[in-house]
Amino acid sequence: MNALSDLQATLDPSRKSWVESANDSTHDFSIQNLPFGVFSDKTNHAHRVGVAIGDEIVDLAVLQAAGLLNVSSKTDVFARDTLNDFISLGREAWRSVRIQLSSLLARDNATLRDDAALRSKALVRQSDAQLHLPVQIPGYTDFYSSKEHATNVGSMFRDPKNALLPNWSEMPIGYNGRASSVVVSGTPVQRPNGQLKLPDQERPVFGACRKLDIELETGFVIGGGNALGEPIACAAAEAHIFGMVLLNDWSARDIQQWEYVPLGPFNAKTFATTISPWIVTLDALEPFRVAQPAQEPQPLAYLRHDGKHAFDISLEVTLRPQTAKQATTITRTNFKHMYWTMAQQLAHHTVSGCNTRVGDLMGSGTISGPTADSCGSLLESTWNGKNPLELKEGGTRTFIEDGDELMLAGWCQGDGYRVGFGTCVGEILPARK
Amino acid sequence: MNALSDLQATLDPSRKSWVESANDSTHDFSIQNLPFGVFSDKTNHAHRVGVAIGDEIVDLAVLQAAGLLNVSSKTDVFARDTLNDFISLGREAWRSVRIQLSSLLARDNATLRDDAALRSKALVRQSDAQLHLPVQIPGYTDFYSSKEHATNVGSMFRDPKNALLPNWSEMPIGYNGRASSVVVSGTPVQRPNGQLKLPDQERPVFGACRKLDIELETGFVIGGGNALGEPIACAAAEAHIFGMVLLNDWSARDIQQWEYVPLGPFNAKTFATTISPWIVTLDALEPFRVAQPAQEPQPLAYLRHDGKHAFDISLEVTLRPQTAKQATTITRTNFKHMYWTMAQQLAHHTVSGCNTRVGDLMGSGTISGPTADSCGSLLESTWNGKNPLELKEGGTRTFIEDGDELMLAGWCQGDGYRVGFGTCVGEILPARK
Repeated sequence: MNALSDLQATLDPSRKSWVESANDSTHDFSIQNLPFGVFSDKTNHAHRVGVAIGDEIVDLAVLQAAGLLNVSSKTDVFARDTLNDFISLGREAWRSVRIQLSSLLARDNATLRDDAALRSKALVRQSDAQLHLPVQIPGYTDFYSSKEHATNVGSMFRDPKNALLPNWSEMPIGYNGRASSVVVSGTPVQRPNGQLKLPDQERPVFGACRKLDIELETGFVIGGGNALGEPIACAAAEAHIFGMVLLNDWSARDIQQWEYVPLGPFNAKTFATTISPWIVTLDALEPFRVAQPAQEPQPLAYLRHDGKHAFDISLEVTLRPQTAKQATTITRTNFKHMYWTMAQQLAHHTVSGCNTRVGDLMGSGTISGPTADSCGSLLESTWNGKNPLELKEGGTRTFIEDGDELMLAGWCQGDGYRVGFGTCVGEILPARK
Repeated sequence: MNALSDLQATLDPSRKSWVESANDSTHDFSIQNLPFGVFSDKTNHAHRVGVAIGDEIVDLAVLQAAGLLNVSSKTDVFARDTLNDFISLGREAWRSVRIQLSSLLARDNATLRDDAALRSKALVRQSDAQLHLPVQIPGYTDFYSSKEHATNVGSMFRDPKNALLPNWSEMPIGYNGRASSVVVSGTPVQRPNGQLKLPDQERPVFGACRKLDIELETGFVIGGGNALGEPIACAAAEAHIFGMVLLNDWSARDIQQWEYVPLGPFNAKTFATTISPWIVTLDALEPFRVAQPAQEPQPLAYLRHDGKHAFDISLEVTLRPQTAKQATTITRTNFKHMYWTMAQQLAHHTVSGCNTRVGDLMGSGTISGPTADSCGSLLESTWNGKNPLELKEGGTRTFIEDGDELMLAGWCQGDGYRVGFGTCVGEILPARK
């Protein structure tokens, strides 16, 4: 067992690293963060597990081979192209590795700092690296847990007076997503084709989506699954979560509007979902735990948990047209606004007996705040195209145009340090002819 | 390339096997069938690939090791616990193995027939074997392609005068299912718990599903995937299909009714989906190809294909209460009634650019025929519980009770032989307390 004091030490705001870039108070990858990912570089094409620190990546396979990482596994879990084998070792193992890394990278630890030969093998500059999908994702589920988002959508497409459906306040509404098309940040996204129902025509036409949108979300990655028929209790749910990523649930609003009744969104979503490459552990997020919004009515017993289960994560989205130098910030919001917590989502997901597996990805649902400039989708911020957004270098947007680059960012601001997610980026390519 | 004449020979109705049980004209596993599965037995616990023939299973790993199967792969693809590696070899390889097996098992072929030592290693009685999930399923999608089923459901829950929604006739409506809880025939299924909205109460209650139902479906298994952004054309879609199974999409109607708006069914379906253990190849189904129902309006261009794309597969469902000796047949129908074809489903699934992968499972949607005794769900055949079904040994059913065993069966009847699917069985266990 890892001592609680060791875990606490990794979160000490005063801890600094000998990787000096990590000590900038606005750098996402402080020594308090230590997110996990999978990378390769120009001189070593092998995909392997790394941890981000400042502008560098620590190659865990190199550290383990050098005897600097004690891992509870006989086999090498870091010289792999996904994190799944490492995650499968369990929570104690994740914590242990994080504690060891925090110590190895601390300013006063000479072991790696003063071993120039090993350091040159173990550290790869992020600017020289390519990042890959960090996990093999057996299942992807998307929730719909922002009250502001659900209210906005309900107002727009159903009834403004009864915008929230009766079931929404009783359970974290979710649906199955498509795991095959989850891609890592940086992967270009082709505008989808599909059936569009134009208001002036009796039958649908086939063509390129005209209302392409983002959905600003976070996702959590299952670190410990459950067997079929054995639900995860709400109070125990967080222990099953390895960590969190940013997630852009690209959405073709016109395709969605025509297809979604009665079985939900399908082609409108399955063409791509982008996630950020670094998984920020729940341990690293611990100092940013805050109370979730009050829930009224009180949830049914299986959805109750004591204490604080939201996290104070600042989020923003920028849009940069292909020809523009500067990106325009199109939304600023915070994860702490979410009505349903990750623990409640996971408890609800499994209460029927449904099993989950290591690497499963669960999207939060679009994260919208209480104001017009904190909406997590263009659908909401432009009110389905009625109120175009002004761009910094001129021009406007209702929905996404070809060549636009959309970037999600997210971070927790500590006292003198950040626990950040990096970015989640995708450029839209024209539709296939 | 396999000669077309070799393929034709495997379908010759007059071909008989030296495995005499295969020659019964009502046995599912004739020499014309040769479905693929994964099995183990009491003396050899290793899961491996086999082919059903009469009452026997042919162990393909043994045949390959003995040099009797020529496979286009340097590595052993049969000593595996799933079919995925074999399927990944491609259509020519599946055909070649099927052609070789048809020859090896033919009555006049002495090679295996007269080699008693090898035969005793290569043949395992089905009664001595345990069957396992035949594929690792990266993604599960369920469609909704029976016009009769969609009309029945629409009449019951929406508007009998406009039972079919406008989008239904324009596209094969589908949604993402939960792959983790797909289980093989024979696996007991626990009644799910969940939120139920009772008509006389303002808020939902938590409890065991009271309206547990089957959905009689078939499923097809992807044999050749497509890359993200590269749709599969309708005319080319069947070449991407390895074969078909029976599929029971267990459904908790009360949970579904409360949760499904607006994002579709979730907990009502994710607790279990049962498939039959043998995958019947599209090649074996070729003689049973028939014309699909006329489609009016004519589908958009991307959903058009020439020729016949339905299959004449007889289907039935039986229910046997725990205390009963005899099962009661609760429905008889046929796959050929399906409005949208598998090719159209796959073309629609990928037209947005969505990728598919080897082993992906695609459910047909509930298969209902035109009459009350050909409904693919109890919801329909009892009209949401209003018209209970009489059971053979007394008693009635509206929905499934604990201890009930539900069995799906399906077969194509040839001239003197059958190409059958075996059965797809599940017994319902009481809900978790």
